[in-house]
Amino acid sequence: MDTITYRPARDELAYTFGGRMPVAHVRSGDVLRVHTEDCFGGLVRGPADLPSQVCRMPYLNPVSGPFFVEDAEPGDTLAVHLASIVPARDWGVSSTFPHFGALTSTSHTATLQPPLEERVWVYDIDQRAGTVRFHATETDHTVDLPLAPMIGTIGVAPGGFEARSTIVPDSHGGNLDTPELRAGTTLYLGVNVHGAMLALGDGHARQGEGEACGVGVEIATTTTLIIEVIKGVPTVWPRLETDTSIMSVGCARPLEDAYRIAHCDMVGWVGDLTGLEQLDAYQLVSQAGRAPIGNVCDPNYTLLAAVDKLLLPQPQAAYGGMHARLRQHAGGPR
Amino acid sequence: MDTITYRPARDELAYTFGGRMPVAHVRSGDVLRVHTEDCFGGLVRGPADLPSQVCRMPYLNPVSGPFFVEDAEPGDTLAVHLASIVPARDWGVSSTFPHFGALTSTSHTATLQPPLEERVWVYDIDQRAGTVRFHATETDHTVDLPLAPMIGTIGVAPGGFEARSTIVPDSHGGNLDTPELRAGTTLYLGVNVHGAMLALGDGHARQGEGEACGVGVEIATTTTLIIEVIKGVPTVWPRLETDTSIMSVGCARPLEDAYRIAHCDMVGWVGDLTGLEQLDAYQLVSQAGRAPIGNVCDPNYTLLAAVDKLLLPQPQAAYGGMHARLRQHAGGPR
Amino acid sequence: MDTITYRPARDELAYTFGGRMPVAHVRSGDVLRVHTEDCFGGLVRGPADLPSQVCRMPYLNPVSGPFFVEDAEPGDTLAVHLASIVPARDWGVSSTFPHFGALTSTSHTATLQPPLEERVWVYDIDQRAGTVRFHATETDHTVDLPLAPMIGTIGVAPGGFEARSTIVPDSHGGNLDTPELRAGTTLYLGVNVHGAMLALGDGHARQGEGEACGVGVEIATTTTLIIEVIKGVPTVWPRLETDTSIMSVGCARPLEDAYRIAHCDMVGWVGDLTGLEQLDAYQLVSQAGRAPIGNVCDPNYTLLAAVDKLLLPQPQAAYGGMHARLRQHAGGPR
Amino acid sequence: MDTITYRPARDELAYTFGGRMPVAHVRSGDVLRVHTEDCFGGLVRGPADLPSQVCRMPYLNPVSGPFFVEDAEPGDTLAVHLASIVPARDWGVSSTFPHFGALTSTSHTATLQPPLEERVWVYDIDQRAGTVRFHATETDHTVDLPLAPMIGTIGVAPGGFEARSTIVPDSHGGNLDTPELRAGTTLYLGVNVHGAMLALGDGHARQGEGEACGVGVEIATTTTLIIEVIKGVPTVWPRLETDTSIMSVGCARPLEDAYRIAHCDMVGWVGDLTGLEQLDAYQLVSQAGRAPIGNVCDPNYTLLAAVDKLLLPQPQAAYGGMHARLRQHAGGPR
Repeated sequence: MDTITYRPARDELAYTFGGRMPVAHVRSGDVLRVHTEDCFGGLVRGPADLPSQVCRMPYLNPVSGPFFVEDAEPGDTLAVHLASIVPARDWGVSSTFPHFGALTSTSHTATLQPPLEERVWVYDIDQRAGTVRFHATETDHTVDLPLAPMIGTIGVAPGGFEARSTIVPDSHGGNLDTPELRAGTTLYLGVNVHGAMLALGDGHARQGEGEACGVGVEIATTTTLIIEVIKGVPTVWPRLETDTSIMSVGCARPLEDAYRIAHCDMVGWVGDLTGLEQLDAYQLVSQAGRAPIGNVCDPNYTLLAAVDKLLLPQPQAAYGGMHARLRQHAGGPR
Repeated sequence: MDTITYRPARDELAYTFGGRMPVAHVRSGDVLRVHTEDCFGGLVRGPADLPSQVCRMPYLNPVSGPFFVEDAEPGDTLAVHLASIVPARDWGVSSTFPHFGALTSTSHTATLQPPLEERVWVYDIDQRAGTVRFHATETDHTVDLPLAPMIGTIGVAPGGFEARSTIVPDSHGGNLDTPELRAGTTLYLGVNVHGAMLALGDGHARQGEGEACGVGVEIATTTTLIIEVIKGVPTVWPRLETDTSIMSVGCARPLEDAYRIAHCDMVGWVGDLTGLEQLDAYQLVSQAGRAPIGNVCDPNYTLLAAVDKLLLPQPQAAYGGMHARLRQHAGGPR
Repeated sequence: MDTITYRPARDELAYTFGGRMPVAHVRSGDVLRVHTEDCFGGLVRGPADLPSQVCRMPYLNPVSGPFFVEDAEPGDTLAVHLASIVPARDWGVSSTFPHFGALTSTSHTATLQPPLEERVWVYDIDQRAGTVRFHATETDHTVDLPLAPMIGTIGVAPGGFEARSTIVPDSHGGNLDTPELRAGTTLYLGVNVHGAMLALGDGHARQGEGEACGVGVEIATTTTLIIEVIKGVPTVWPRLETDTSIMSVGCARPLEDAYRIAHCDMVGWVGDLTGLEQLDAYQLVSQAGRAPIGNVCDPNYTLLAAVDKLLLPQPQAAYGGMHARLRQHAGGPR
Repeated sequence: MDTITYRPARDELAYTFGGRMPVAHVRSGDVLRVHTEDCFGGLVRGPADLPSQVCRMPYLNPVSGPFFVEDAEPGDTLAVHLASIVPARDWGVSSTFPHFGALTSTSHTATLQPPLEERVWVYDIDQRAGTVRFHATETDHTVDLPLAPMIGTIGVAPGGFEARSTIVPDSHGGNLDTPELRAGTTLYLGVNVHGAMLALGDGHARQGEGEACGVGVEIATTTTLIIEVIKGVPTVWPRLETDTSIMSVGCARPLEDAYRIAHCDMVGWVGDLTGLEQLDAYQLVSQAGRAPIGNVCDPNYTLLAAVDKLLLPQPQAAYGGMHARLRQHAGGPR
């Protein structure tokens, strides 16, 4: 069991899942400490740095990786435990971006209207206080929001010889943009290619559900992961596990299809863990489930189906108790 | 200030918002104690009572009312504080229903596939223990879920001379099916017609977010409301307030349009309460907001934009402090 | 067999389907000659008449009627043959309207962007030449488009005690806004209430598929219909028949649900007319079908499934040959 | 000016756009004669060859190519004139496919229902008669449909270092599945990578609008193209031109977003060709436009905005008259 530390040089940053050579090799049980840049590649540092001017397409939303995971083969599941996500700087940044976001017309929900004004917000991050300070730009309002670091983009190479932009969330993971990807969570991803090819980036100091303006409080991070390969167990859509919940992820448009994907997966998962017949599991999920929204701005929207473990009758541990083992490995519940 | 108690006879139940004569008159400050039937009109009491057989269209989802609110005129807002929601029986019922629900094709998401099996689940409600007991139908699994009573359907008459089925949620309220409509919440509804014409029904002992199977744990209730008219203040889409949060409701298909409606309304509301300029309010909602889902099964889907009051910089009280007054009137926070 | 002529006074115009008393009674076989106002009630007559200023909500999209059809009962089908649609004036009018239309954010696809400029276009109608002349407003371009008169809004009272705005298309008909509703077409509508309560209005000199800007070339008309009741034959969604085609109408959001509704209905209809088994009918419709779009701007979008009769193997005549009889009654194919 | 003929060996077939080395080089003005396999790789030849059994994911929808186009650089437009599309065999094949198609739940519009039965239909193609003969499988119905050969999948490598499955239509082209891609049409595609990397396949003897069952009448073809690079002229979404019309393509979910993309593009194109101001162009497209549907079954749906050239006031020729020149090169209008 090794600890691998990786800090990409600027020209090593990746902009796709798939289609890239690995930057390092890891094995089951390894701890991976990765520096991730923010979604703007660190180029937006103040109000004058308008993203559409300082960034150049497609060099947005860089990820660190991919990491080749020894012994990971198509048909396996990669368990990735998020042990810690530490902001790398004492500031974060957000913005509007022309024709991107949930409350504007976009390249795809296309209208003839001009875009909203492009503007940058800079937040102060106080790790000791656990706060992210919002400053209004047009007035002198400020307010402290809870610091809640998360990884926006994490995934493996897709199957079918595809390479997908890091802006896109889909069944391979990618730009999931859900606050549930916080420290203490284990992410399960189906492996599509030899070596899995894990990569991650796009940390947020926090984001609201849906990431309405299209941009979270974007930060560079040092993120510590523990990796395990679960042999011979496939996973179709990403799944999450915390100490208290299991969650299935759906990525699609329209948003109800993300709901459908996540909840069909959850009905099956609950059936597998409890032995409930399909319609019984459907009924239980219908009454016990939560449906936290990830993003409503990316090329696919992300929505999760979540069930508290305490509300499942006599469940087996998911993936053979993987989460508990990784959690312990990471130092146990805090 | 009066307490009006109303228990509808079976043939007094209403199946539309609008197009009905009032069953009683109330005034600002009145307490209204209403018996509501369950969505099946109490006709589904066991596994043999398949809803599609024992219920007859359009006699589904009955509401009690409408109540004529003195002095309520178009352009005003009706504040409705949910003081308590008490299950009327020690059981509740859920079901699948042919071609209705989120994880099946439906009359509108139409496919050539046969419907899922229609089946009924009966839940035990233990008010003292605060539990709703799920019993699987095909196996002997059981589990206790937290009792979390809510009102599924509450609204006023729509404008434009319309009368809408009680199955439909829209800007007039109606079948919102959100767990946020629990005791302690104040609902704000725009008044569209002389007298507002408030009605409610469709209690749930609990439901999951999205109400995946199309049916909550359906119960009859005794629900106690306190009513106030806020003169000269319009409300476009329903809004909710609790001790800790403000929430805007959007109802639409596809689900992202419900998100857009709710969040555009919330951006405006936050601006009004704080004095933040529009894009600053957009930014704050984007990082601080929650987006709880109501239903993903009704003719319109329901999704809320929620912001914790503590995360707003120097806010005024919403609607002039109405929630706090009604809360106190109802006996204060519990 | 009578000819009933009806020209509404201004205060007789209706703004809902359902919830209104009949303006006249008709019987099977009657010819109904109806004057219809344009969607603006005739109030928009030039560039200075901005609809949002000269019209007042909800007094938009008036219909003439309802007509009580003797002997029409729930479970029957009303056949309405469009014998002729004659523009009542030598001009028509179109406009943008704030936050309405396919290429703008709207009340439901809500964004924070300001609306597009509201503007009026006046068209010259030359019935002899069969043209509608477009005049650009910012330049001196003009072009003659083919005159193609159609009825935008036609329907019966909905079921379930509902009354629906005339802006809305749904299973009762209403604001279908499809160019297929031209002279020579027979429309089949399911009857939901005693007397059916037929009404119509919202003529267009022509419109593009989707009615992108939300407004056709709006005209008052004199429209001649022939009415027949088909006893004991239900119709779930509106259907159309011409000399060459049969068409099923779907109304929904998102647009793919309108596609699904229309095509599921068509698969069933083709099966009924030919004796093809369901999947065989699905296959044939998949290769032979057309899918003309009606509107992509109204509260529900409208899309049709169409199949040429010549591409059906050994079909029976639809509805017992009703279209051919009504066509002959109207003077036969032209 | 050369004629390049290319017939792929089985192991040369491609399953992505992007991420592949070229199979041949072509230059502006070259004629390219390409053999294309059907979407099943020719493996489905009769009722017993169920696609889910004889095909293996991701080896579906093969394309021939990519072809490196000399002098094509990002920012240019590739004009591809479809000179002829000749069925390679005297039969074609269609099928249902588990959880794929418009009238079934799918992997993304996920439900708990079992899939429709998987079944194969074999069609007779008679090129002389110009017919495609449908045979029902459960009864003895047959009917001749017009032969209308088209290319379902044609595109270039996407930008942003992506490689996309040939199942997907998007701004790079791909699985557009529109009947408008017939002989006589010129397709304009924006170039994203050095050499453009054109590929094509998935011929259909015909398909209905929407390709409801998810599969056309699938054929192998010999397709003849003429290629031209238009330097320095970008094209964002695919565009088509025929002797009589110009068309913009949108690919998205939900279907209304495909409508929005295509029609926003068309409004801009009409403005460019005529000098009409934006809202004037919007108005004209709204009244003159057609909106033919391509597919409602692929990962993105395809919908076109079409305008007849005769309905444009004083238009310039699109792309400097490219279509007319290529048409003449190909032997002129037939």
